[in-house]
Amino acid sequence: MNEESKPVTRRQFLEMVGAAGGAAAVYETMVVLGMLAVPDAFAGPPDTSGNPGKGKTVVVLGAGVAGLTAALRLREAGYSVVVCEASDRVGGRNFTVSTAKVDSRNVIRQKGRADQECKFDGSPDTQYFEAGCGRIPYHHIALLELCHELKVPLQPYIMETRANHFQTKDAFGGKYVKNRQLANDTRGYIAELLAKAVNKHCLDDTLSEADRTALLSLLETFGNVSKDSGYVYNGSSRSGYIEDPGVESPGKVMPKLALDQLLKSTFWKHRFYQAEDYLWQTTLFHPVGGMRKIVDALHAKLGGIVRTRIEARRIVNSDQGVTVTFASGAPITADYCISTIPLPILKTLIDAGTFSPAYVKAVGAVEFAKTCKVGWQAKSRFWEALRGPNNTNGPQIFGGISWIDHPITQMWYPSADYFAPGPAILTGAYNYDAKDNPVATKFGNEDLSKRLDIGLEGGTLLHPEFKQFVPKDKGLSIAWQEVPFIGGGWAEWDRANRDQAEAYKLLLKPDKRFIVAGDQVSYLPGWMEGAVLSAYHVVDVVTGRVKVRAVEGVEEVVAPDSASVTGAG
Amino acid sequence: MNEESKPVTRRQFLEMVGAAGGAAAVYETMVVLGMLAVPDAFAGPPDTSGNPGKGKTVVVLGAGVAGLTAALRLREAGYSVVVCEASDRVGGRNFTVSTAKVDSRNVIRQKGRADQECKFDGSPDTQYFEAGCGRIPYHHIALLELCHELKVPLQPYIMETRANHFQTKDAFGGKYVKNRQLANDTRGYIAELLAKAVNKHCLDDTLSEADRTALLSLLETFGNVSKDSGYVYNGSSRSGYIEDPGVESPGKVMPKLALDQLLKSTFWKHRFYQAEDYLWQTTLFHPVGGMRKIVDALHAKLGGIVRTRIEARRIVNSDQGVTVTFASGAPITADYCISTIPLPILKTLIDAGTFSPAYVKAVGAVEFAKTCKVGWQAKSRFWEALRGPNNTNGPQIFGGISWIDHPITQMWYPSADYFAPGPAILTGAYNYDAKDNPVATKFGNEDLSKRLDIGLEGGTLLHPEFKQFVPKDKGLSIAWQEVPFIGGGWAEWDRANRDQAEAYKLLLKPDKRFIVAGDQVSYLPGWMEGAVLSAYHVVDVVTGRVKVRAVEGVEEVVAPDSASVTGAG
Repeated sequence: MNEESKPVTRRQFLEMVGAAGGAAAVYETMVVLGMLAVPDAFAGPPDTSGNPGKGKTVVVLGAGVAGLTAALRLREAGYSVVVCEASDRVGGRNFTVSTAKVDSRNVIRQKGRADQECKFDGSPDTQYFEAGCGRIPYHHIALLELCHELKVPLQPYIMETRANHFQTKDAFGGKYVKNRQLANDTRGYIAELLAKAVNKHCLDDTLSEADRTALLSLLETFGNVSKDSGYVYNGSSRSGYIEDPGVESPGKVMPKLALDQLLKSTFWKHRFYQAEDYLWQTTLFHPVGGMRKIVDALHAKLGGIVRTRIEARRIVNSDQGVTVTFASGAPITADYCISTIPLPILKTLIDAGTFSPAYVKAVGAVEFAKTCKVGWQAKSRFWEALRGPNNTNGPQIFGGISWIDHPITQMWYPSADYFAPGPAILTGAYNYDAKDNPVATKFGNEDLSKRLDIGLEGGTLLHPEFKQFVPKDKGLSIAWQEVPFIGGGWAEWDRANRDQAEAYKLLLKPDKRFIVAGDQVSYLPGWMEGAVLSAYHVVDVVTGRVKVRAVEGVEEVVAPDSASVTGAG
Repeated sequence: MNEESKPVTRRQFLEMVGAAGGAAAVYETMVVLGMLAVPDAFAGPPDTSGNPGKGKTVVVLGAGVAGLTAALRLREAGYSVVVCEASDRVGGRNFTVSTAKVDSRNVIRQKGRADQECKFDGSPDTQYFEAGCGRIPYHHIALLELCHELKVPLQPYIMETRANHFQTKDAFGGKYVKNRQLANDTRGYIAELLAKAVNKHCLDDTLSEADRTALLSLLETFGNVSKDSGYVYNGSSRSGYIEDPGVESPGKVMPKLALDQLLKSTFWKHRFYQAEDYLWQTTLFHPVGGMRKIVDALHAKLGGIVRTRIEARRIVNSDQGVTVTFASGAPITADYCISTIPLPILKTLIDAGTFSPAYVKAVGAVEFAKTCKVGWQAKSRFWEALRGPNNTNGPQIFGGISWIDHPITQMWYPSADYFAPGPAILTGAYNYDAKDNPVATKFGNEDLSKRLDIGLEGGTLLHPEFKQFVPKDKGLSIAWQEVPFIGGGWAEWDRANRDQAEAYKLLLKPDKRFIVAGDQVSYLPGWMEGAVLSAYHVVDVVTGRVKVRAVEGVEEVVAPDSASVTGAG
């Protein structure tokens, strides 16, 4: 059989299509071959026209973004809705802490701890700490469209700058290095090493001569190495200068970091490349004035139907409706119940005998992640200083995140009001447990004073001048695992867990008149987009207007992959 | 001689220091060893205290950023200053075009062409086209401090987003691809190939076993490949989705681009990696309301000492002072003359016999680069659309630059007012000559209508819907080589040119009472920072207060490297 008459596999065929037409052509071809269903992209909020909810009642448990959004749409559809929130605060894990006393959002409550009241100086419009969610990807369409509808102005959230710091005790003499050094010296070494392998003909089995030539050309630009220098990486101005170019001096380029130090630092294990992941790719957004603006806008639309301090204690399900009993006050019976209560808490509230056994098992299938933050009010924006002492450059950090091999894990700088006088807010820690490092568990076990001491220690490793500018007495800390009625940061789904896949599939459907919602029941746990999409999903289920694929059983369902979408992976 | 008693070279010693302490330690050690002079970082504006200019006069030629800044500081120092600008417009290559008729900045004038008057709809505060400089790096300290002093508010300029486009006819079937696909598929393939070489033991001569293990771990995160899959790059959600994750669907990851298509596209030759270069690293800035706000603020401070429409025709130098003759009006004689006139034009104005021959030669040593732009007013921000037709995603572009293998070279999207209704401004072309591709020369030779046709063609390749939203009749175009009294984009210095190094050195010093200024006499040609630093340099020279290193001859001087700092490299 000669070459031309050989049959091609589907894969070979797609590769040929790809070579000729790129990814778009492959995709179109896959659709034609029936290898992919045509995607149902987000097609907008649920259809609530025509008053389908007339005469029907819904009780929504939990006044976070999912609960409030579901209530908004259901009311549009004519349902009589009440939202019951156990705590004295709306928003859930959308929690912008400031001195504004709206809905007790000036207080951090944790079980067994003294309440922390925010004592920040200045206006709550700029002086606020995002204890919960902190950013909105530009591709989170449902949430962005909701913000537009609610007239919540958005501004860019700066995820990364090349001026950010990274510090570890394992390399660089324990001193912080700049993001630009790690990013670009790594690229330089990778380019040098790959060029060497290519020129040694180690990859001739994979690469044609034309490929090799083109790849070497790519590597010159990719890593800032040059053919003329034998592709050796000799450092790059991409890694910055020890003296900036001016009029008299062409500048002195920062010497490259030693390869063995780069490798010893294991910087890549500290989320250094997070900004490359789809969820954190520029340009991200943030509401002007904080995430609470979304909650405020939803709450303002819903008004009196949102009740706080009404704690569900027992949920009884039936084919006719759901009855919820509360810690005090009269029980509520409604035609439908939508629960956004975190599943591990919900598990303790449902009257198991009134639900199907499989559903009860599904509700218990997932735990919530432990995660902690620290919020600081600094006296000035010292991280933005253009100049340091003795004619040196200052940190020159305008937004982004510094990463550190330390319990604080990361530090966020403000993405707005650059160059303003102080004070200003830093997120001084944001951690989560890793497989072999339960850092958030340990951190959450400490009291406020100790957490803040750890925060100051980490801050000082990233910024030796930290304590000069950051008073301990205005510091705040939250351990979400200790927050009443919430108990964690996000649902910890594991895609490899088949039981969880089954549980997820069940949780997409109602059990009698009861259905769960929230980012916990989405492929975006920990993200408001998941909360909004889940709210829309349950509204579609309740109205019965849209054919829900998973409910119809046409879709193979896998569990969400929390590790990859929460940043804790 | 055993290993331990072997002498070490300086280089080996520094490598040891680097391994132990990183770049900072190497640098400190180099200073100690006398291998580097201690850098003189920017130490602030010139010392103008004590009225050193009392009774002395200065004539400044050119009212761009350098001329205005020099005048500001000299007047502070007590000099009697006049600024003479040949055109009817202040700002020079700081040129924010809008309908605001301040200083004729609503008109683009080019030699031999009809004037273009800006006809943008809406407010000039948001509807403006940056015909000249467009961004401020966060490390351009002198300029940033000047902006603060002048109370010019700044906002982030978004340099790059992973949603931006790249298009070439040479690959991907001629269809645009997303920045995130190029960036991340390239990283994936590079990781795969380098891992392969490591695992084939091709690099064992360079890498220890520990290095190899660490490098493979790095490559997993760097390129999103996994050990479990044999380090094969199988695509990545970093390159986006063909269906975003939601509630019912975990999302469908974009298939990877074929390696041979990536290589055929030569995307890296089209400035794709510009955002990695120090000058374009995040976070960049931009004045709220446009670059002209800097010029407006300088002009407001200087008031009546700035004279427009006064064209220098002849400059006579002497040891006592300088006399400038103008196209009309009385000549001006001053104790000092600071010229910011572009050197190729200045060459035609100086009375050669009154300057030293070497200086005359130096003034003629450099040409100005040809560079063109197109400005569009789009009816709406179609590039920001979250959703496209038929349940597809929209472009979702919020700032950044799309690159293209086409005469328009690049397209800039606005960095402010995201999600606002239209209209909005696009920079629809920004090109410059390359070694074997005089694209800016050719583009500038075309008339406005033809330039705009080319602009529409390029725009349509990046955005098939372009012409629906971008009317030709409001389009503007500038070819800087044709702009009267300027004649180009920036000085084209070549670091390899020894004659230019000599010229640069001479131009840092005064010739009798005459000295040149501007970004053209800095290591930052094309940047306002160069203009400000040069202004401060000449003020120091005139006041004689600060020991100017180059003037004292203590500094080895090389020519600037325009190719690497202008983006045209």
